Amino acid sequence: MALPKEFHEIAGRVNNWGRWGADDEIGTLNLVTAQVVRGAAAEVRTGRRVPLALPLHQDGVQTGMIPGRVNPLHVMVQINQELFGPGTVACSDDVVTMGLQAGTHWDALTHVSHSGKLYNGQPAHTVTAHGGAEFGGIDKARHIVSRGVLLDVAGARGTHRLAGGRAVTPEDLEAAEEFGGVRVRSGDIVLVRTGQVQVYLAGDRHGYGHPSPGLSVRCPEWFHARDVAAVANDTLTFEIFPPEIEDLWLPVHALDLVEMGMPQGQNWNLEELSTACGEERRYAFLLSATPEPFAGATGSPVAPVAIL
Amino acid sequence: MALPKEFHEIAGRVNNWGRWGADDEIGTLNLVTAQVVRGAAAEVRTGRRVPLALPLHQDGVQTGMIPGRVNPLHVMVQINQELFGPGTVACSDDVVTMGLQAGTHWDALTHVSHSGKLYNGQPAHTVTAHGGAEFGGIDKARHIVSRGVLLDVAGARGTHRLAGGRAVTPEDLEAAEEFGGVRVRSGDIVLVRTGQVQVYLAGDRHGYGHPSPGLSVRCPEWFHARDVAAVANDTLTFEIFPPEIEDLWLPVHALDLVEMGMPQGQNWNLEELSTACGEERRYAFLLSATPEPFAGATGSPVAPVAIL
Amino acid sequence: MALPKEFHEIAGRVNNWGRWGADDEIGTLNLVTAQVVRGAAAEVRTGRRVPLALPLHQDGVQTGMIPGRVNPLHVMVQINQELFGPGTVACSDDVVTMGLQAGTHWDALTHVSHSGKLYNGQPAHTVTAHGGAEFGGIDKARHIVSRGVLLDVAGARGTHRLAGGRAVTPEDLEAAEEFGGVRVRSGDIVLVRTGQVQVYLAGDRHGYGHPSPGLSVRCPEWFHARDVAAVANDTLTFEIFPPEIEDLWLPVHALDLVEMGMPQGQNWNLEELSTACGEERRYAFLLSATPEPFAGATGSPVAPVAIL
Amino acid sequence: MALPKEFHEIAGRVNNWGRWGADDEIGTLNLVTAQVVRGAAAEVRTGRRVPLALPLHQDGVQTGMIPGRVNPLHVMVQINQELFGPGTVACSDDVVTMGLQAGTHWDALTHVSHSGKLYNGQPAHTVTAHGGAEFGGIDKARHIVSRGVLLDVAGARGTHRLAGGRAVTPEDLEAAEEFGGVRVRSGDIVLVRTGQVQVYLAGDRHGYGHPSPGLSVRCPEWFHARDVAAVANDTLTFEIFPPEIEDLWLPVHALDLVEMGMPQGQNWNLEELSTACGEERRYAFLLSATPEPFAGATGSPVAPVAIL
Repeated sequence: MALPKEFHEIAGRVNNWGRWGADDEIGTLNLVTAQVVRGAAAEVRTGRRVPLALPLHQDGVQTGMIPGRVNPLHVMVQINQELFGPGTVACSDDVVTMGLQAGTHWDALTHVSHSGKLYNGQPAHTVTAHGGAEFGGIDKARHIVSRGVLLDVAGARGTHRLAGGRAVTPEDLEAAEEFGGVRVRSGDIVLVRTGQVQVYLAGDRHGYGHPSPGLSVRCPEWFHARDVAAVANDTLTFEIFPPEIEDLWLPVHALDLVEMGMPQGQNWNLEELSTACGEERRYAFLLSATPEPFAGATGSPVAPVAIL
Repeated sequence: MALPKEFHEIAGRVNNWGRWGADDEIGTLNLVTAQVVRGAAAEVRTGRRVPLALPLHQDGVQTGMIPGRVNPLHVMVQINQELFGPGTVACSDDVVTMGLQAGTHWDALTHVSHSGKLYNGQPAHTVTAHGGAEFGGIDKARHIVSRGVLLDVAGARGTHRLAGGRAVTPEDLEAAEEFGGVRVRSGDIVLVRTGQVQVYLAGDRHGYGHPSPGLSVRCPEWFHARDVAAVANDTLTFEIFPPEIEDLWLPVHALDLVEMGMPQGQNWNLEELSTACGEERRYAFLLSATPEPFAGATGSPVAPVAIL
Repeated sequence: MALPKEFHEIAGRVNNWGRWGADDEIGTLNLVTAQVVRGAAAEVRTGRRVPLALPLHQDGVQTGMIPGRVNPLHVMVQINQELFGPGTVACSDDVVTMGLQAGTHWDALTHVSHSGKLYNGQPAHTVTAHGGAEFGGIDKARHIVSRGVLLDVAGARGTHRLAGGRAVTPEDLEAAEEFGGVRVRSGDIVLVRTGQVQVYLAGDRHGYGHPSPGLSVRCPEWFHARDVAAVANDTLTFEIFPPEIEDLWLPVHALDLVEMGMPQGQNWNLEELSTACGEERRYAFLLSATPEPFAGATGSPVAPVAIL
Repeated sequence: MALPKEFHEIAGRVNNWGRWGADDEIGTLNLVTAQVVRGAAAEVRTGRRVPLALPLHQDGVQTGMIPGRVNPLHVMVQINQELFGPGTVACSDDVVTMGLQAGTHWDALTHVSHSGKLYNGQPAHTVTAHGGAEFGGIDKARHIVSRGVLLDVAGARGTHRLAGGRAVTPEDLEAAEEFGGVRVRSGDIVLVRTGQVQVYLAGDRHGYGHPSPGLSVRCPEWFHARDVAAVANDTLTFEIFPPEIEDLWLPVHALDLVEMGMPQGQNWNLEELSTACGEERRYAFLLSATPEPFAGATGSPVAPVAIL
């Protein structure tokens, strides 16, 4: 079975292979220029900071549906241990085991492949058990800081949460721009709010993952047209799940990561940010969201902060 | 054995218990006000970004000396796995096991206790195997974004690296202020460069940890006088190691974390930042360094970025 | 809240503290003398071997109900890796993260405490985050090989599986002796079959754990009277769950492990053994079930084999 | 680079592919018949039990030389936790992360491949990140119980420990048979003692692994001629290391595992067994050494016990 013609047609229109050189490993993050960062810093008006990560613990969003992507297991390896003898200063230390994409995270460009290829035409077999991603691992990003724009699709559509299985379309994105009085421009990081994370926050992990609202297969072209640097949202699957087109699973992943070379963020909690942007009547801000530099990893937890 | 009189005298002068209320769990991070953040954003001039984290992998800085603090073990749990059948989009996924304080990290206020007490007088036994730190875990910080100031002590002293066992004193910190043309003020995050991380980068993990230059037991009073929000440096032990006063191990940890309630950062790579600040002739910048919100953890990896 | 009078009365009757000396760390395993082992070897008639462990994988018996007791996460760290260059012999290597009591396992004597005490009156606080169980860890057992006796309670009661919530009583154990034509004697390891593991094998992990048939609070006295060395069964909870006496949780654990010093085994798959014993008309055999020697652990996976 | 002609000549002489059918996944373990097991049980005379596993802890035999093969990290996830309320029975629970071949272990037949093939001609690519070894995983063994024979080569050669880099030859094995008054026969599990584990026990982990005495490339033919079921010894590398033939790394692994389909054991502590056999003047015994049934694993920790 191959990917359908429809997929390849869109792929042809959004493909960025070679755009930043044959050796490029960071894709659309190249669009975050120093000038973009200066503009992002200029968006800071009040100094209000909004964290966007879900807490990391055993009761995270994973249900076992995605094999091996385990919720964080946090353990203490020392508790008030007087390492240097009785009565001395005592230390506590911890260890975690977790799927790197288990919670609020970035997908590295190498998180998916199709037809044997990764972003920029690199062979998929460069990802190995021994060393992980030789090419395009999450550590290559170095830093992710830019202007962030909240596209509050749920808010724009007058609901607190989009229904499970509702596709987010380019028309929704533009309605959210209008709702927020903001226009997405080159190098921005776009945060798309569906409200779906509320399902998890209310205690329903299974309902959170499936069925899920999410990005339509039509969105990557819009991201490409606007030269967006990265996109994150408040769902487990990022794209609408189950998919819009029968038997075409994860097409948005393949278009964003493989064809465009654009990082994706998932399980971002955009609820407090929605409130803050509404209160401040501003939907653009400085966004700091650098992944942990796991060498050769295909994703990383991230603790993003919006600074308004 | 109890802690010596000398320790308790300093403790009395830097103690912040109750300063931000009996229930406070974040200590000096309270000093990072919205106004401080606005000032920090105003430090962005060129948009140059400098990441400060060491890469996370099996050959990290840990040697086994600190029990249980294991270097990151990064493994692939799926490699180009066609989860939805042959010819579909293929996924790669990874898992990590690591000490939360193994690489570039923040110590939570609960990382150490002394005399049975944590910061703000909370009992040390609130840290348990079952739930970690009930009080003052790293997740309570929510966000760490402020003005950062590089105090390049090695640079100020005309050397590329302080010798192992060299104490960094308040006089060194002030010499570095003068060298950098900058004055540390309330709410700043201070980065103290010794150059010691070069030893690790050159391949000598054992030499990196011991003997190490680091902060003198006299520094906490200086931090307290300046109302610093947090301090990080480029060593494994943060403070001079072995210690200045015989049998008084980790006094700076106890003063900073327990008495003042001030987070400490270790294993930060300040080499590229030193170069950047030198080139731009500016030693203050916007620093974004939010820890991952591990629930009840006594520390967290962090991927700090300085934005100049 | 303290444990009820009823508990303490039974405890007084089965208590073995001091029986094998004040320093003893293995309890009833002392009953497995060399003579017992010779007798056990003499039970081998046909050479038929029956393994009793469930496979170790992510879909194991744990559901998240017991905090931190995670199913095995098995990952490959090398796959056909030609460590010494192209064309050389290639190696595959794996790593596991798992709860030591996640699958088929032994409880160490230190797995539970009550009233601040472990077996033999040792203080419960000898179990620490730093070193695990200083006293009575699973590694102290060194070897567990003895005569095994299958008490097929389900078979004796003419059913393939006892109902959830059905207590296994001393009368059931004696009926199973009669059914099997065998009498339990000093140093034996008793395997009590309820058939409950079938619920897990049929795919219902939640139903397996709760409600569960299991040993009645009346059984420890029977084990004590017979001087049994250890007991294992085919349930998650070992004892009837929820418990027979309201608000008296895990009394059998406390009686067996703390008072008697008798190891318990859980999640043993006794289905194939039941068939084999029925076919061979013999319910005694050589049982080899040595735990992995995890230093200071409060339990261990085990791969028991019955040799008929 | 391909494997040399010399390797392929020996391979041709020891190859067992197809011997137990095209679908066989356990190789020479087929030689452990019920009759062999009856004979093994008959070797039990005194009932003396000798455990052969090294303790499992952070200071195990691994040094980081073998990528990803981490020593056991044992952590407590609950310590005397009163799960059902204050004053109730309290539980302790632990978790481990470890390389499956980190300590005393069995190699599964799939632990190595050469020329793209595993045992029985199966393709090496059947080992994947997603599921581990689809074919020939360690769980396929089900049970490993047979007659064990100690070939105390060090003892036979009149030394307490063979020198690092000393090859153990078929002549050594026969001298050890004579020394022990025993003859290896079909279905036996052979334990070859070099004494090398003493180097580790004395605290020198690096010296233990390299240089190491170990089996010569000439041994597999001897094992094949005797129809041995499995072989284990007291070294990290099993075979002599560095190898006898320049640039021919791990030839014994490839011959034993891939060509013969014979499991190998490493890091077995044979010191106490050597003493026991010497005292009892018997070098044959019942050996129980069933691996933990990790699904799809290429190796497993084992806690072997010799019963004399």
